[in-house]
Amino acid sequence: MAEPIRAGILGATGAVGQRFIQALADHPWFEITSLAASERSAGKKYKNAANWRLDEKLPDEVADMEIVSVDPTKVDADVVFSALPSSLAKTVEADFAKKGFAVASNASAYRMEKDVPLVVPEVNADHLGLIEVQQDNRGWDGYIITNPNCSTIMLVATLKPLMKFGIQNVNVATMQAISGAGYEGVASMAILDNVIPYIGSEEEKMETEPLKLLGEFNGSEIIDADFKLSAACNRVPVMDGHTETVWITMRDDPTPEQVRQAFLNFNPHLGDLPTEPDQVLIVRDEPDRPQPRLDRNMGNGMSISVGRIREGIRYVLMGHNTIRGAAGASVLNAELLHKQGKL
Amino acid sequence: MAEPIRAGILGATGAVGQRFIQALADHPWFEITSLAASERSAGKKYKNAANWRLDEKLPDEVADMEIVSVDPTKVDADVVFSALPSSLAKTVEADFAKKGFAVASNASAYRMEKDVPLVVPEVNADHLGLIEVQQDNRGWDGYIITNPNCSTIMLVATLKPLMKFGIQNVNVATMQAISGAGYEGVASMAILDNVIPYIGSEEEKMETEPLKLLGEFNGSEIIDADFKLSAACNRVPVMDGHTETVWITMRDDPTPEQVRQAFLNFNPHLGDLPTEPDQVLIVRDEPDRPQPRLDRNMGNGMSISVGRIREGIRYVLMGHNTIRGAAGASVLNAELLHKQGKL
Amino acid sequence: MAEPIRAGILGATGAVGQRFIQALADHPWFEITSLAASERSAGKKYKNAANWRLDEKLPDEVADMEIVSVDPTKVDADVVFSALPSSLAKTVEADFAKKGFAVASNASAYRMEKDVPLVVPEVNADHLGLIEVQQDNRGWDGYIITNPNCSTIMLVATLKPLMKFGIQNVNVATMQAISGAGYEGVASMAILDNVIPYIGSEEEKMETEPLKLLGEFNGSEIIDADFKLSAACNRVPVMDGHTETVWITMRDDPTPEQVRQAFLNFNPHLGDLPTEPDQVLIVRDEPDRPQPRLDRNMGNGMSISVGRIREGIRYVLMGHNTIRGAAGASVLNAELLHKQGKL
Amino acid sequence: MAEPIRAGILGATGAVGQRFIQALADHPWFEITSLAASERSAGKKYKNAANWRLDEKLPDEVADMEIVSVDPTKVDADVVFSALPSSLAKTVEADFAKKGFAVASNASAYRMEKDVPLVVPEVNADHLGLIEVQQDNRGWDGYIITNPNCSTIMLVATLKPLMKFGIQNVNVATMQAISGAGYEGVASMAILDNVIPYIGSEEEKMETEPLKLLGEFNGSEIIDADFKLSAACNRVPVMDGHTETVWITMRDDPTPEQVRQAFLNFNPHLGDLPTEPDQVLIVRDEPDRPQPRLDRNMGNGMSISVGRIREGIRYVLMGHNTIRGAAGASVLNAELLHKQGKL
Repeated sequence: MAEPIRAGILGATGAVGQRFIQALADHPWFEITSLAASERSAGKKYKNAANWRLDEKLPDEVADMEIVSVDPTKVDADVVFSALPSSLAKTVEADFAKKGFAVASNASAYRMEKDVPLVVPEVNADHLGLIEVQQDNRGWDGYIITNPNCSTIMLVATLKPLMKFGIQNVNVATMQAISGAGYEGVASMAILDNVIPYIGSEEEKMETEPLKLLGEFNGSEIIDADFKLSAACNRVPVMDGHTETVWITMRDDPTPEQVRQAFLNFNPHLGDLPTEPDQVLIVRDEPDRPQPRLDRNMGNGMSISVGRIREGIRYVLMGHNTIRGAAGASVLNAELLHKQGKL
Repeated sequence: MAEPIRAGILGATGAVGQRFIQALADHPWFEITSLAASERSAGKKYKNAANWRLDEKLPDEVADMEIVSVDPTKVDADVVFSALPSSLAKTVEADFAKKGFAVASNASAYRMEKDVPLVVPEVNADHLGLIEVQQDNRGWDGYIITNPNCSTIMLVATLKPLMKFGIQNVNVATMQAISGAGYEGVASMAILDNVIPYIGSEEEKMETEPLKLLGEFNGSEIIDADFKLSAACNRVPVMDGHTETVWITMRDDPTPEQVRQAFLNFNPHLGDLPTEPDQVLIVRDEPDRPQPRLDRNMGNGMSISVGRIREGIRYVLMGHNTIRGAAGASVLNAELLHKQGKL
Repeated sequence: MAEPIRAGILGATGAVGQRFIQALADHPWFEITSLAASERSAGKKYKNAANWRLDEKLPDEVADMEIVSVDPTKVDADVVFSALPSSLAKTVEADFAKKGFAVASNASAYRMEKDVPLVVPEVNADHLGLIEVQQDNRGWDGYIITNPNCSTIMLVATLKPLMKFGIQNVNVATMQAISGAGYEGVASMAILDNVIPYIGSEEEKMETEPLKLLGEFNGSEIIDADFKLSAACNRVPVMDGHTETVWITMRDDPTPEQVRQAFLNFNPHLGDLPTEPDQVLIVRDEPDRPQPRLDRNMGNGMSISVGRIREGIRYVLMGHNTIRGAAGASVLNAELLHKQGKL
Repeated sequence: MAEPIRAGILGATGAVGQRFIQALADHPWFEITSLAASERSAGKKYKNAANWRLDEKLPDEVADMEIVSVDPTKVDADVVFSALPSSLAKTVEADFAKKGFAVASNASAYRMEKDVPLVVPEVNADHLGLIEVQQDNRGWDGYIITNPNCSTIMLVATLKPLMKFGIQNVNVATMQAISGAGYEGVASMAILDNVIPYIGSEEEKMETEPLKLLGEFNGSEIIDADFKLSAACNRVPVMDGHTETVWITMRDDPTPEQVRQAFLNFNPHLGDLPTEPDQVLIVRDEPDRPQPRLDRNMGNGMSISVGRIREGIRYVLMGHNTIRGAAGASVLNAELLHKQGKL
């Protein structure tokens, strides 16, 4: 590469922000040029403002960078990755897009807006076509693209190759890791030796985002996919890795082996994106896989493992929620933008 | 009571055996008269043979009892409670029944035999009528009655009051405690920071036992209930308490509120059985309940907590797997036998 | 008892506050007459203001009590039990004492004040004599008595019977439960699959409080005990129950068996205090005890278990941190006050 | 390198055996040529015989290797790494040494034999001189070298730079990970929400092995170091990473800062051994470090993290028990052998 693409991180000190740093630190295309966080952190060196919680060393070149505020006039970058809380994201991401930044967001604020692409590259790369619609609509120099909720990403990656069988209904029960709630999100007294059968707003996201993701882009808008989802989301004492148990009713009533083959043959051919795993879906034939602790780091955390494909059709899927389901998803989106010449 | 009923425990040293001791130690009707276990333990005092693992003190009167072998000629009792592994139970429980013992078994060996009652007192007390059929068939002086698998017990207690709506299909995803596998059943390296999406034979039990339990006894046999169940069973890092996420399709398509009322009005009127909880079903209206750590001891571990009743119909249930789902279930069955004059 | 003693709880909604409710709800001497908490909660029913987190049902009579603010003019009681954060306790507890209340505090604010009794009934009941000194000094109608830090309580209960051997030095490494930090105190991402070798201010308390507790009251002041303590405090993924590994150097160099006998013979004869356990110290001779999950509830959470007494002298002790180490400690102090006619 | 050194693994299917595979799979000097395990596994492909439990993919070239029995006539290798249980190791390792193999053992069987080197390369590389003594004594063509117990390795690496201050006494309390007991070693019901204050034989090893390691080799034997150790070993619910709290009494009574400098300046200059970490000791100045989950993978699991250096002298150390404390230790020993021309 001639010139690295200059990348900023909004919300750089939090759990997903740290995963962004990890994903971008040695990236062949991107260079971290700005770290933005709350006023409380602005002006401090990253190593002094953030409580680094990954079990890899904080990269030296990042440790000494000075944090700036979340402000388009303070951030020096071509693309910004947003790990902002949804409440902030609504205003701030628009501010950046207006000023000409490409915004690759992990926040939920814009996901369901009609002119904002909600993209998983292996599932609906063509939805990036909405960027032009968005810029026309809003008169922005830049734009916002989003990735879905962590639990949705893993689910739709397995639904995509089954669309040809005519999906009619999906019931999904999740067992989600504590890192999905952010560092202070789940008190240890709440979850040790326990299951919490509720995660605020999670079920709503899982029941709507897949229909947009699996919908058709007709050049001006997305026509949602037409089937029903019902989700039951649970928090379990697992650090990283969301496990999902899925039942699908399909028009063509495929056999488990047909479903297995559809997973094995799912090969989205994105091209050589650095964060893309060799296999999007890893099919496990052992009776007791996938398991979060054993499988979450497959494909550098970007592969989704699927197993227990049985009559029903039932199966179990598992993926790394803060890599595949968050920071890695946004970075993969930005890589796709670059490959498509949009960045 | 004039005379206590003499009770033996088969498999007294294991996890469920210890729960039998806990349930029977201060029981108003039963007196522990025999503790039977493997040859390795026979002849030893209980306190020396068993690794007591409950957080209550081992009752003094039990501590010094001498363990006998699992042999009808060595056991002195009117009723024996069986916590034997299924492989042993097949032969041993028959031996005891032949010799005139009432056998209240938590093992799976006889559950699905046509002439053996599979009973949850609040659900199908009348199935005890099969005892006569069994004795006629087999020429036994005693008899065997069984309780279902732990996950089944909790599920059927919630299905029973919904039968009137015409259950057509049940999908259930479980998150099961490690104590369900016995003391050495799950290695810590297998389950710490992990979910295991598989429990051997568990799904098969959950998909068949409820149909017998909710079936009709016509005086000579059980006519199975007619609907379909599909189960996905998961092990999670929880000590006690199985949580289940349920989707039910019903002919009458009741509203969540109708389902809630059916749960609230479920009142099986067993009479004053000592182990019976005040409420079989406790309905929780908070969004994040039930939870195993907070709710498993409700009703001394015999109540089943239900919550998150939503369109779908979806709900979450939770119960104590080694009390309500095992030892307490067998003891409640024996209490019912006594009340019906069969013991 | 003719008249119940009217008891208020300051900080009634938190983790220790809930333990106070549990300890006082069926108490033979005390009756809960006031629940005080922050302005945010004042005016609400307890059941609506508090997030009840114990695995026993919230007592009905408490559920509907209205919370008042932490203000002596709003609280109706003879004695108030304080579970306030230390920062608040300094001012508030003095306010209550001035107004004539007996304050039995679990907070650290007054523990090391020269004229405030720091008491564990089995260890230094006679230090309550400081109450008169305190009232003289300060001109208060009421008074404050305190119990030590949770880790200190368990430690001093084992040091007391060893004082006769001439304690010279104590090294103690703790493994402390998450409940010690309060409900939101330890994030699950901080402690799952982890040990945190630091607990703020804990070591300082453990190195000073025992010297006051084991000191001599000469009628006007406490002459501190004269030995050295060095503590290393660690947080581990345990819900309740602090475990401590202790090394003691003693002038008389007793054998492990002499130490064991000293523990077995430790019998403080408090009289019939309702919260007093049958055995203050339970000596375990198994090689792998005490363990928090198995032993924390012994003596209704008020006994301290000791084991692994070996050359060194080394031993391991364990006690329930929010019962013996907090709420139960304050209640036991108040019971002692009553028995001594001071309440 | 011209020719790779052919390496066999004895006990290749277990927890430490899997770590050997991980350490050797891409090793620049060694090539895995034999995998040996019990008769039950012999003849099977590795992927079918072993239950691979690491969160990295089983290397393809290993997956299809056929397992041989633990027999010197079946194993093709220059050096064998032993992860055998101690009971087997005594006979089997001698058999291999007789037949001319270099045996680098993680087992405890030979550690304390007078003519067997017990080595941590950064601590006592010169003890490898015992190999000649061993071969003379025993008439073996090959030889056995050993690494210490996991907890000892980490401890001695911190004691070595303090030897100059005149160590007189060490008290150490450990909090050890479950992986130290092997895959089936600790039942989840034993350790979830618990601490077990006992690990069989562990304290004895920690109290003797350091004296040999820190002893002087005079050309024919080791003169043990002369100080006293007292260990208290605890199992905690942590997957990998042993934490140790240490108190040391030293003749010269150094300040915490002097100790810190001694750690920082500890630089054993081994040369370019592939498994050697950049820093043997990583000194952490934060109050709450080291922590196993955050620090165990530092230096690819070969660095030992030290913190909380305080008056006392007290400090906390932490290292990865199955890498630095087991497989990595043996591999580093073999690398040192090669560099010294002994392999």
